[in-house]
This record gives sequence, structure tokens and C-alpha cells, in this order.
Amino acid sequence: LVFVLSSAIIVYRLPWTWKCSKLLMKFIHAGLNTIAMILAIVSMVAVFEYHNAKNIPNMYSLHSWIGLTALIFYSLQLFLGFAVFLLPFAPVHLRALLMPIHVYSGLTIFATVIATALMGITEKLIFSLKNPAYSAFPPEATLVNCLGVLLVIFGSLILWMASRPHWKRPLEENTKVLRPIGGTPEGTEVESTMTNSSNVDKSDLRISTEAARKQNLKFDEAGQRSTM
Amino acid sequence: LVFVLSSAIIVYRLPWTWKCSKLLMKFIHAGLNTIAMILAIVSMVAVFEYHNAKNIPNMYSLHSWIGLTALIFYSLQLFLGFAVFLLPFAPVHLRALLMPIHVYSGLTIFATVIATALMGITEKLIFSLKNPAYSAFPPEATLVNCLGVLLVIFGSLILWMASRPHWKRPLEENTKVLRPIGGTPEGTEVESTMTNSSNVDKSDLRISTEAARKQNLKFDEAGQRSTM
Repeated sequence: LVFVLSSAIIVYRLPWTWKCSKLLMKFIHAGLNTIAMILAIVSMVAVFEYHNAKNIPNMYSLHSWIGLTALIFYSLQLFLGFAVFLLPFAPVHLRALLMPIHVYSGLTIFATVIATALMGITEKLIFSLKNPAYSAFPPEATLVNCLGVLLVIFGSLILWMASRPHWKRPLEENTKVLRPIGGTPEGTEVESTMTNSSNVDKSDLRISTEAARKQNLKFDEAGQRSTM
Repeated sequence: LVFVLSSAIIVYRLPWTWKCSKLLMKFIHAGLNTIAMILAIVSMVAVFEYHNAKNIPNMYSLHSWIGLTALIFYSLQLFLGFAVFLLPFAPVHLRALLMPIHVYSGLTIFATVIATALMGITEKLIFSLKNPAYSAFPPEATLVNCLGVLLVIFGSLILWMASRPHWKRPLEENTKVLRPIGGTPEGTEVESTMTNSSNVDKSDLRISTEAARKQNLKFDEAGQRSTM
């Protein structure tokens, strides 16, 4: 589950996929998330069946509460993502508005799922290891603890990959537009500012940087993120 | 601990502090993190003393492993942050290189601390609630579960605040530079591109946006983030 979720998250960050169409990548992202959702529901059902068969109460632990909350938010995320970003009806400004929220929710749900897994591992180790107990350092405890630490490291790496701005998929229209037109006045002016930036003095740099930053904030969300 | 950590994280995101000097804000950020570090060490020592007094083995659980890892990375983060960003010796390019790593590590350590707290709560509930057991839904379990869920919500809000680009502290030199100079060729060109952007056609927009994005990536890290 965590691995499918991870691959769904980083699918836009793989440079060798940047030549694939945005729509294909969206389908892969949606498909992987759907698989992860199915796996999550199957696991949930399995847990309930196991609890019922063993006469263990359901939904009493913090692990279960946070896990269920994550699952509810995840299904909401999947539904909204499908309705807004995959179906062709949502206007660009709505996509631009929702994309940062979609990205944030996705990463937060991912982190919450890892935290839930860690709580589940803790519970399982306490309940399963009785003789010798968890606290007596049996090899199984050491092994599973190591797996838990690896899970945290793995999750951190995925979050690192997903949050690097230069690993973002470049603009879809970039290759199409930049080559044939060559540069309209506005375009070349900005580009020359960029390439000459090492020659101009510091205060100019700051003005243009601040302007570029504001412009970027505006279009990064409106243009880059919400293209079809 | 979590609250001091949180305030240390969001201290740059409070608009009413933007008129304070950057150096003062850095001191507050470093000071709050130092307080959090002291609290963390005091708690660790308390746990070890409690374990020794009650004859409970130390460092056997996944909670303890991940908690100790987080503490080690946190002290590393504190030391590096102090050496690179607070002391005046580090060159700007080193600060620019390390700042995104510093931000990422800080937020990841924060999330890991919350996950560790959730594991600790889970352990404590299982070990302390015996009659009635945790699984029998005693009111104490419900209360603590709610606190755990609130902790996740609280952590998510902090991460949301810390990751919004428009809640970033604006450039230190902004007010000083923009007023007296008024605009050199490079500066005004970019600014006019920005203000006229609604009139130019779409392809121009994309070129200038892409250029601005690249420029921003470069200077957001080099300029914005590493001023003294």
C-alpha cells in the first residue's frame, strides 16, 4: 500500500516521464491511487474480519481512529482529484485554486498513513510478542523495529522528492512554444534579465527577483499546475 | 515540546513580525528551538530514570528508536543551523545551498516527532489501561484518542502554514531598495511584463512565466532565503 501510494506521488517527478503526455501521466497517477485505495479497503475489511473472528473489539485504538480518518480524507482526495483534475469540466481558475490544496493533502495523508503504520507496528509487537516479551529484545522485535525505521526513512525520501521544485514536471507547452516563436518582446526581456543577472548590480537583482517571485507565485499555481 | 517546536517553525510566517529585523527573528527561532531541545533532553532523562526505577528495559521499542533518531537529527539540525545561518561566517552560496535542506529537515523532524508521540501514546494506553483494558473503550482511552487526533490536526495545520509560499517572510531589502531607486531598466522590464501580463497573449505568458520560474528557483534560494 505504502509503495503504491509512493509511486503515485512521485510519478510526476521522474524526468524520463516528462516526454509522456500530461494526460497519460494523470491517468497513471489516478490509476495508482485507485489501486492504493482498493488495497486500503481490502486491508480494512481484512482487519474487521480478523477482529470479529478473534472477538477483538473494532475501532478502539488511536491507530484505528487515525487510520480511518486518513482513509476518509484519502477517498475525498481521490473523488475531488477525479472530479476537478481528470474530468474536463472544471475551469482553470478552480484547478489553480485547488492544486496546492491537492498537493498538500496528498502529502499530509501520505505522512499520516506512515504514522498510522508505525502505530500499528507498535501495537502488533506489544500484543504478539509475549514470550519473550517485546521488552526482552527478541530478534523479531529488532527486525521489525528496523523495518519501522526504514519506513520512516523511505517516507522522508518520498517527501523530499515530492517537495523539490526543480524536480517538478516542466510546463507542458514549454517545448511547443519556446521553439517556433523564438521570443516575443516580453519573453526576451525577462530572459535577458535572467541571463545578464550576474552583471547587473545587487539592487537591480533584488527588484527583478522580487517581481519574478510574485509573478511566479501567480503563474506557478495558475499555469504550471493546472494545465490539462 | 511540540508547541515550542511549532512556534519555532512558524515564527517567520507571522505577518506582524515582518517589520522586526531578520536577525531578531533568527534569534527567536534559534531560542525557541533551543528551549525545545532542552525540553526534549529533560524528557529523555526522565524516561530513562522512570524505566530504571521501574526496572523497564530502555530503548527496546520502535517508539524509542525513532524518537532517539529524531533527537539526534534535531541536535544536528540545531548545530548546523547555528553554525551556518546564525554565525556570520558562512558564505551566501553555502547558505543558499543548505537552506532548502534546513527547511525540509526541520519539517520532517517535526512530523517524525508527532509520529513518535502517537506511538508513545499507543504504548502508554496499552500498558496503563488494564482494568478495564484499552479495547473495552474506557473513557480515558476515548479522551486520549481524541487528543491524539487533535495532535495530528495540529501538526497538519503547522505544516500547512509553513509550506504556503505567500506566507513566507518577504525579502528583507524589499522596502529599502524599491523605494529610492524606483526602477532600473532590468527591474522595470520585468515589472511591466508582470503588470501587463493579462493583456499579452497566452504563449508570451508561458515564456515569461517559465523564465521567471527558473529565475525564481535560482534567486529564491540564493537571495530570499539567505539574507542575514
